[in-house]
Amino acid sequence: MLAPAMLAAAVAAAGSPTSPIYGVTIPDGYRQWEFIAPALEAEPLDELRIVVGNRTAVDAYRAGTLPFPDGAVLVKLAWKRLQSPDFAPASVPGPATTVQVMAKDSRKYAASGGWGYGRFIDGQPVDVAQHETCFACHEGRVKDRDYVFTRYAVPSGLR
Amino acid sequence: MLAPAMLAAAVAAAGSPTSPIYGVTIPDGYRQWEFIAPALEAEPLDELRIVVGNRTAVDAYRAGTLPFPDGAVLVKLAWKRLQSPDFAPASVPGPATTVQVMAKDSRKYAASGGWGYGRFIDGQPVDVAQHETCFACHEGRVKDRDYVFTRYAVPSGLR
Repeated sequence: MLAPAMLAAAVAAAGSPTSPIYGVTIPDGYRQWEFIAPALEAEPLDELRIVVGNRTAVDAYRAGTLPFPDGAVLVKLAWKRLQSPDFAPASVPGPATTVQVMAKDSRKYAASGGWGYGRFIDGQPVDVAQHETCFACHEGRVKDRDYVFTRYAVPSGLR
Repeated sequence: MLAPAMLAAAVAAAGSPTSPIYGVTIPDGYRQWEFIAPALEAEPLDELRIVVGNRTAVDAYRAGTLPFPDGAVLVKLAWKRLQSPDFAPASVPGPATTVQVMAKDSRKYAASGGWGYGRFIDGQPVDVAQHETCFACHEGRVKDRDYVFTRYAVPSGLR
């Protein structure tokens, strides 16, 4: 948990909606960021997802730098899985669901492993209760990778 | 089919392996290109995929430009789907399988709808027989979208 004063500061600094607890915003231009990896989330969510990262995050992935440096930001975009109307074996993005952000600031977010979290639907943050679940899950499962689930996906023929 | 002379010219112009029939190469730096959309390919392939596009392709998608202009290039990266060892409901990229390229040149590839195709494994093109299947499938299913299956995925909160 962050002190209320820190949350207020984060809200004041940003012009766009901020997540509860952390005061994280959706970063400008993230749709153009390099992708880290795709993922499939099973039912009941049944979603196709992509994680993208800013330059700082991507550089850290490529160099194998852990923990991620301050300024690293990861964004996970999610859509309902839809069977392709054009090609039966394929599933493609259907309706967009959530945008989820992890922003690294080791001092600001010292109480949550150095990461601030934000989950947004249609550009608006979801409630406090949902944000209270972020860190516990990441801490319990991938603390040894600086609380980051997603690994950088390397295509065939590259290293 | 391209004339043999055109294929020879494409091979001579490029320093990297080229696909049969089309003489398409894997473009430099494509791993950093903006993603168009993720996809899931059902069994037996059982793959997670991402299509990325170069600037020309992405600009055409955003503007709704059809047909795509010459110079547009799309690359599809594929991995075997692997259940996440960290979080049971998630599937993530396993071993990398293929890299597939569509390159637009309306004159050079006039006989195949303006697109040249390349399918690569570990940086090497697969055989002629596989490349003979590309255009027929695209022509039969998505000719009205300039032979391109993948649509630009818009995340929640963006337009």
